[in-house]
Amino acid sequence: MALPKSFLGDDFLLENDIAAALFHDHAARLPIIDYHNHLPPEDIAANRRFQNITQIWLAGDHYKWRAMRANGVPEKYITGAATDWEKFEKWAQTVPATLRNPLFHWTHLELRRYFDIEKILSPATARDIFEQTNDALQKPELITQGILKKMNVEVVCTTDDPADDLEAHQKINEYQRISTQINPTFRPDKAIFIEKEGFVAYIEKLAAAANLEIQNFADLLKALRRRMDFFASLGCRLSDHGLEKMPAADLASGKTENQAVSIFKKKISGKKITPAEAEIYQSALLFELGKEYARRGWTQQFHLGALRNNNSRLLKNLGADTGFDSIGDFSQGIPLSHFLDKLDKNNQLAQTILYNLNPADNEVFASMAGNFNDGSTPGKVQWGSAWWFLDQKDGMEKQLNTLSQLGLLARFVGMLTDSRSFMSFPRHEYFRRILCNLIGRDVQNGELPHDLDLLGKLVEDVCYFNARNYFKF
Amino acid sequence: MALPKSFLGDDFLLENDIAAALFHDHAARLPIIDYHNHLPPEDIAANRRFQNITQIWLAGDHYKWRAMRANGVPEKYITGAATDWEKFEKWAQTVPATLRNPLFHWTHLELRRYFDIEKILSPATARDIFEQTNDALQKPELITQGILKKMNVEVVCTTDDPADDLEAHQKINEYQRISTQINPTFRPDKAIFIEKEGFVAYIEKLAAAANLEIQNFADLLKALRRRMDFFASLGCRLSDHGLEKMPAADLASGKTENQAVSIFKKKISGKKITPAEAEIYQSALLFELGKEYARRGWTQQFHLGALRNNNSRLLKNLGADTGFDSIGDFSQGIPLSHFLDKLDKNNQLAQTILYNLNPADNEVFASMAGNFNDGSTPGKVQWGSAWWFLDQKDGMEKQLNTLSQLGLLARFVGMLTDSRSFMSFPRHEYFRRILCNLIGRDVQNGELPHDLDLLGKLVEDVCYFNARNYFKF
Amino acid sequence: MALPKSFLGDDFLLENDIAAALFHDHAARLPIIDYHNHLPPEDIAANRRFQNITQIWLAGDHYKWRAMRANGVPEKYITGAATDWEKFEKWAQTVPATLRNPLFHWTHLELRRYFDIEKILSPATARDIFEQTNDALQKPELITQGILKKMNVEVVCTTDDPADDLEAHQKINEYQRISTQINPTFRPDKAIFIEKEGFVAYIEKLAAAANLEIQNFADLLKALRRRMDFFASLGCRLSDHGLEKMPAADLASGKTENQAVSIFKKKISGKKITPAEAEIYQSALLFELGKEYARRGWTQQFHLGALRNNNSRLLKNLGADTGFDSIGDFSQGIPLSHFLDKLDKNNQLAQTILYNLNPADNEVFASMAGNFNDGSTPGKVQWGSAWWFLDQKDGMEKQLNTLSQLGLLARFVGMLTDSRSFMSFPRHEYFRRILCNLIGRDVQNGELPHDLDLLGKLVEDVCYFNARNYFKF
Repeated sequence: MALPKSFLGDDFLLENDIAAALFHDHAARLPIIDYHNHLPPEDIAANRRFQNITQIWLAGDHYKWRAMRANGVPEKYITGAATDWEKFEKWAQTVPATLRNPLFHWTHLELRRYFDIEKILSPATARDIFEQTNDALQKPELITQGILKKMNVEVVCTTDDPADDLEAHQKINEYQRISTQINPTFRPDKAIFIEKEGFVAYIEKLAAAANLEIQNFADLLKALRRRMDFFASLGCRLSDHGLEKMPAADLASGKTENQAVSIFKKKISGKKITPAEAEIYQSALLFELGKEYARRGWTQQFHLGALRNNNSRLLKNLGADTGFDSIGDFSQGIPLSHFLDKLDKNNQLAQTILYNLNPADNEVFASMAGNFNDGSTPGKVQWGSAWWFLDQKDGMEKQLNTLSQLGLLARFVGMLTDSRSFMSFPRHEYFRRILCNLIGRDVQNGELPHDLDLLGKLVEDVCYFNARNYFKF
Repeated sequence: MALPKSFLGDDFLLENDIAAALFHDHAARLPIIDYHNHLPPEDIAANRRFQNITQIWLAGDHYKWRAMRANGVPEKYITGAATDWEKFEKWAQTVPATLRNPLFHWTHLELRRYFDIEKILSPATARDIFEQTNDALQKPELITQGILKKMNVEVVCTTDDPADDLEAHQKINEYQRISTQINPTFRPDKAIFIEKEGFVAYIEKLAAAANLEIQNFADLLKALRRRMDFFASLGCRLSDHGLEKMPAADLASGKTENQAVSIFKKKISGKKITPAEAEIYQSALLFELGKEYARRGWTQQFHLGALRNNNSRLLKNLGADTGFDSIGDFSQGIPLSHFLDKLDKNNQLAQTILYNLNPADNEVFASMAGNFNDGSTPGKVQWGSAWWFLDQKDGMEKQLNTLSQLGLLARFVGMLTDSRSFMSFPRHEYFRRILCNLIGRDVQNGELPHDLDLLGKLVEDVCYFNARNYFKF
Repeated sequence: MALPKSFLGDDFLLENDIAAALFHDHAARLPIIDYHNHLPPEDIAANRRFQNITQIWLAGDHYKWRAMRANGVPEKYITGAATDWEKFEKWAQTVPATLRNPLFHWTHLELRRYFDIEKILSPATARDIFEQTNDALQKPELITQGILKKMNVEVVCTTDDPADDLEAHQKINEYQRISTQINPTFRPDKAIFIEKEGFVAYIEKLAAAANLEIQNFADLLKALRRRMDFFASLGCRLSDHGLEKMPAADLASGKTENQAVSIFKKKISGKKITPAEAEIYQSALLFELGKEYARRGWTQQFHLGALRNNNSRLLKNLGADTGFDSIGDFSQGIPLSHFLDKLDKNNQLAQTILYNLNPADNEVFASMAGNFNDGSTPGKVQWGSAWWFLDQKDGMEKQLNTLSQLGLLARFVGMLTDSRSFMSFPRHEYFRRILCNLIGRDVQNGELPHDLDLLGKLVEDVCYFNARNYFKF
C-alpha cells in the first residue's frame, strides 16, 4: 500500500498528477477576487494591528464558538470575560475534537499560510503557538493591509447597510495606497424586514443618511436609490439579501405595489402589520430594488434558507450572529421562480447569484438558475458557491458536481469567503484544490479528455477570470 | 501513477476488471427496451431521412438549448432564424463549456456510436464534423428505421395523447416491416389539467376521437376507456402522467367522485373552477384511470416534481418544453401514499412506476414503492430510473445506490431514454456501464461475492429481462 | 489490478492499513452499549431458546418481509400459515435478489458471527443452513443470555410503554445473574397520540399501572411521573418518542398548557377533538415530559419523519409495524427549533438525541443540534445515528460525514441497533468498520494527520466511551 500522504502537504486534496498539475500550474498563482465577505472595512482603513491570535482568530468566529460549546466549553471562555490566553487555550483543547470538521483543516491551513507553523494545535502546543503567532502578528506582512497583499487579494467586497456612511470606504479610497480594491456591497435587509422591531427607527436613520424625509413608499425608494448612487461612487457592484425564502406575495397580480404603499404607511404611522402584509411589502420592495440593480448593471445576491436565532436564551445574552443559526427546510422553488420571472418578464432581471443553505435544495437552485439564462450574458444567473455550513469539502464537492451536471461549470464565478476574518483567505486555495482534484479525477478515469490546455483554461476561468469578467469591477 | 484512461474508451466508466467483464460479457449485447420516450412516431412511420446533424441533434433538444443560453448564445442561433450550419457552429462553441456536464458525454458518445467520430467537438472541428455527419445521415443505417436496427432497439414506447389518432402507429403496424416494436403510451395529461386554458376545447377533441358526446364525467370516462381500447389494439401497455405532485383531495372520504361530477359539469358549462375544485377533479379522474389500468394489466407511470414554465417571457415566445422547466420542492409523501393506498385498498392498484425529479425525494420514493409490494408480482411498484435533470452519472449512481439500499436492485426494470431524439440510445449503454461499475466496485471491495454468474444474471435482468417480463409487450 | 477482497473477510469495509489498524486495534475489542433497541425483555428474562432460525431471524423482521414481498413472495410464506421451513426457504430464494441491499450483508455477517457459516444463503444452501443453524441454536451460547455474552453486550436499553409492568425487567434484576445490564426506556407514545383510537382506554390502563385515577391533565402528568420513578428504579436513563414531526403548536404564546387541560378533559369525556387540538395537547405534554427528563438527568430521544401505515389493506390484515412504513417529507426545522427552544429558555432542556428518517433532513438536524449546545455537557444535543431505512453503509457514511462536517464527530455517542432481533448485534461491528474506514481514508489522503494515538482515541470514544459517559448507566 502507498504511504499515507502528508497532512496538508503540497498535494493536499490533489489525488493524482493531473489534479496537481492543474492546481500548481494554473490555479495557485491567480489573484483572489473575494466578491462577498463580511470583513470590517474599518480594520482595513486603519490598517489594524492585531494584539494576538485570539483577537484575529476567535473574537468574531461563531463557527469556532459552536464547536467549543459542543465540546462542553463554558461561555466564559468563548464570548465571556476570560483572558485572551484562556480563550485560546480552550480553543486548543477543542481542536482535537474537530477532527474531520472543516475547522481542523481551516485551523492548520491558516497556521501554515500565515505563520509557517506546521504543528497540530492541541493543549501540548497551545502556549508555543500562542506566543509565536502573537509575535508574527506584529510584523508588517500580518498587519491588515499586509495580509491582503500577502494573500494576493485583488478585490474585496464588504457587506454594508444602506444607512452606513461608508466612512472607512471613503478613507481607503481617498487616503490609502493599497493594492487591493475594497468595494462596498449594498445589503438593505433592515429596510426589508418591516416586521422586525426597530424598523421605524431604521427608516429614520436611512432618511438621515439619504438626506431626505421618508414619509411614504416612494420616498423610501428614492432614499434607497440615493444610497445606491453613493455606494456606486465607492465601487459598489453587488447587492446582497438574506432571507428564509423569497417573499413572493401575489406577484402575478400586479396589485402588490399599491398594497405596499399602504402597508408601509401603516407601519411608519406606528400601527401593527400582519405577516401577510409584511410579505407583500417585502415582495414589492425586492421587486423595485431588483429593477434598480438591473438598471445599474449590478449583480444581486440572494442567500436563502437560514433558520436564525433558534436559541432565544443565548440570543438574549449574546445577540444575533453568535452561532445559534441553522439550516432550515423551507419550500424555495415556487416563490423563487415567481420573483425571478416577474423581473425577467420585462427584461429587468439583473445578474443574479442564488445561494441555498440547505443542500437538499441544491438541485432546485441549480436548475432554477438555468431558467433565466437567456443568452444575453454568459452565466447570467448563477448558482452560488457552497455557503456557510456547506463551505467545506463535502459541500463544495456536491455544489461543484451538481453545478457540473445541471449547468455549466465553465461559467461559474467561483469562490468567495463570506467571512468576518482576515485569516480566511486560504479558503480560496482550499476551493481551488478541490476543483482541480475533481477535474483531475475525471481525467484519470477517462471521463474527461486528457487535454491540459482545455482544462487549465476551465480552472483559470472558475478561479479568477469569470469573476473578473462577470462583475466588471 | 497509472496513465489516465482514454476518454470514452472501451472501458469507459468501468473502473476494474470485474466491472469490465460484467459489461462486455453480459450487458453490452442485450437489446434495448426503451419503454418510455418521446420519439415522434411519424418519423418512424415515414422512415425520415435527416438533412443534417442540426436537424437530428439540435432541432428539438432543450438540454442543449439551456446550455447554449447559459453560455451566452442569442436565441436566434438556438430556436431562431439562423441557418442550420450557424446553429451547429454555436453548439460547437458551447461544447467546451459543457465539460463535466452530461452533454459533453452524450455528445461524444453519440458521435462515436452513430458516426465513428472520435474527435472532440469544438470550433476547430465543427466544420469537418458537420460535413462528415451530414454525409453519414444519408446512408440507410442512419435513416430512422436503420438507427433503430443499428442500435438493437427491440421495443419503443412513444408518448401519446388520448385524442391522437395514432395514424403513424397504425401505419407502422400495417405497412412497415421493421424489427422494432413501436407501441403508443396513453398520456391523458390534457384531460386531467382541468384548470388550464383550452381544457373545454380539448374535451371536444377527445369526444370527436372517441366518437361520442361528452356531456358529463361519466361520458368522459367512457371516452377515455374507448381510447384505451384503441391504444391497446396498437400495443399500448403503459400510461404516463406528469404532475407537480399527486392530487389527493380528500381521497379518504369517498365523496370525491360525486364532487368531480359537478366540477366537470361546471367547467364544461363555461364556469370558473377553484384550485381546490381542480384538485378534487384530478384526484377522482386519476383514481378512475388507475382502476382501468389495473383491469387491463397496464403499467401506470407518474413523473412527479417538475416546476414548469418558470420563464413566462420566453414561454410566450417559444412555447412549452423549450428549456425553462426546473426541479420543484413539493411535498410528495402524503398525497402519493393516499393515492396509491386508495387504489390498493380494493386491490385495484396497477403495476406502477414512480419517478421523482428532485433527488431530495429519492428516499421518499424508494421507500414508498416498498409499501405497495404485496407479493403478487416481483417488483410490482417500481421506483423509476433517474429522470430528466437526474439522467446523468451522478443522478444514476444515486438512484441505483438508494434503490439498492432501500429496495431490490435485482427487480429493477432499468433504463429508458425519455428522449425526443433518435440519437439518445447510447444512454442505455451509459446506464449499463454505470450499473456494471457499481457492482464491480463492490466486488473489488469485498462487499459482494466474486461470483460472476450470480452478478451477471443481475446485470442481464436489470438491463433487459426484467423489463421484458414486467411489461409483457 | 489487485485481486478482489474476499467477501466479508477480516478487512471487510476497511480499505487501507490505517483503517484496518484502527478497527482491529481499537474498535473490535470494545463492549457494545446498545442504548436503544426493541428487544423483548421477556425473552431475556426467560433466557429463551429459539426452536429454529426462522423463529429468531424471520418471525419479527419487517425488513426481510418487505424484501420478500418486493420479490413476489406471497404473504402466506411471510407472516402466514406456512411452516418455518417453508418460510426460510422463501427467504433463501429472496436473498440472491437482495444483492447490494443491507440485508445481504446483515444476513451473511450474522451467519458468520453467530454460526461460523461462510456459505452464501440461496436455494442451494438453504436446507443445510437451516439444519446447521437450528442445531447451533440449542447450544448455551446461542440461547438468549448466551448471545448477549458472546456478543460482548454491556448494556441493552429496551423500549417500553409507561403502562407496562416491567415484570421481565424486575425478574432480570432480581433473579438473573447476567453480565449485561438491561434497562427499560420510557416511550409514552400512546399517552401522546390523543387523536388515535383507543386513547381513552389506554389512559385507564395507565391509571391502573400508576395506581391513581386520571381525571384531568394534572393527574395524567402525575401518573406519568410515578411511572418514571418506577422505570428509574429499574435503571431507565432514556426516553423515546416517535413522531412525524415535532408538534409545536403556539409554544411561544404560553397559553398551550391551559388549552391542553381543556382538550384532555374533552377527550376523556368522550368528545371528538380536532387535529389542531391534538397538536396543542401533544405540544404541551411533550413540553411537560421534557422538563421531567431534564430534572432526572435522562436523555430524551426523538425519532422524526416516518410516514407510517401507508398500506391500509395490509395494515388491516397484519397490524402495525409489519413493513408498510416509509420515509416522509415533512417540514421539520421550525417546529423542532421552537420545541427545543421552549425547553432551553429556562434551562430545562435534557440531553437530547434527534434522529431523522429522511436523509434530505440530515443537514437540518445536524445543524439544529448545534444550536442548543451551551457548553454545559460535551455533546449535549446529539444528532443520532442513521436510523431504520438509513441504517446501512450509504446512510451511515452520509450521517458520519455530515456530522463530521457540521458538528463534532469526536463527541458522537455512536451506534445502536434499534432492532427487534437478538441477531442484530453485528451491526455495531459494521458501524465500527465504516467509521474506521472513513478515518483511515482521510489519513491515507492526507486529510487527517497520521497519528494513530489521536485517531484511535476518537474511534474508541465514538464506539464506546462517549455513550458510557453520556448516559451514565
